[in-house]
Parts: sequence; C-alpha cells; structure tokens
Amino acid sequence: MADVPQGWEARAKPLILFRRFEFERYAEAREFLEALAMLSEETGIHPQNISFGAKYVNITLEAADGVAISEAEYSLAAKINGLRMK
Amino acid sequence: MADVPQGWEARAKPLILFRRFEFERYAEAREFLEALAMLSEETGIHPQNISFGAKYVNITLEAADGVAISEAEYSLAAKINGLRMK
Repeated sequence: MADVPQGWEARAKPLILFRRFEFERYAEAREFLEALAMLSEETGIHPQNISFGAKYVNITLEAADGVAISEAEYSLAAKINGLRMK
Repeated sequence: MADVPQGWEARAKPLILFRRFEFERYAEAREFLEALAMLSEETGIHPQNISFGAKYVNITLEAADGVAISEAEYSLAAKINGLRMK
C-alpha cells in the first residue's frame, strides 16, 4: 500500500461495526441469542457474523452496500444494544 | 520453535475439532442452532465457539483437558452430526 503523502490525512470509512457482549452465565448468553434471532426475523437483517461461546457473543455488522456503514447498520446496532438492556 | 531432528517425525495431538455446516436458508441454520443449544443443555457441554451467519454455522470443540481431543469431544461431535441429519 502506498504511503499517505506528507501533509495529508487518510480517513477510513467504517466497513464493519463490531461489538462483544459478555455474560455471567451461558443461560444469559442464550437468552440474548434468542432475542437476537427474533430481531433478525423482525427486521429481515442478519448480522454478517455472530460468534459465541458460553459467556460471550461477538457481533459483526457489515456495510450492506460494501462501501460504508450507514444508518441501517447503526440502527440495527442500537436495537441490539436494546436487547442487552432487558 | 526448534526443528524436528533428522529422521524423526513429529505427530501432533489434535487440540480442536472443527466443522463447518452450510445451509440453504437462515431458517435451517436457526433450527440447527436451536437443536445445538438443546444439546448443550442436555450434555452440559458447550462448544468452545460457534460462529454463524445466515447460511453457515462453524463449530469448534476444544480438548477439555487442553492436551488432546478425547472420546468426550468425539462423542459430542458425533451427536452434533446427528442434529444435521434431522
């Protein structure tokens, strides 16, 4: 990759949104995953990747247009945060 | 890491079992994930990591003792295969 010329500043457009959610117990993680599945069905949007173990859930949202994160992804991310509040 | 001395052959003990399951539709992937969650509850064993998108589920089973895959992991892997047959 070429270097950014002197005096210039490169600003990347975010291509993914990522968040890790941690839980005390698997039962809590499972409840969250279940709510997430229902949200996917309601919105018809499925996160690009959900990676989980007994006590964590990592979520990756990709830019739908492959160019930059837009309002659609920010809105989904906010809804996912809302599930955590329950 | 030191090289394996001449004439010797290093054999690794498998530390994880990994399998990718692919699906035609998210509904099928979700059904599989649901069955997997029930299996985790029954057995009390949760795969180290489950990573999924709309049409795939990747599963990683780690050696419980951190040393080598044993009968317990092979047995769980076989049970997970069984879920796919349904």
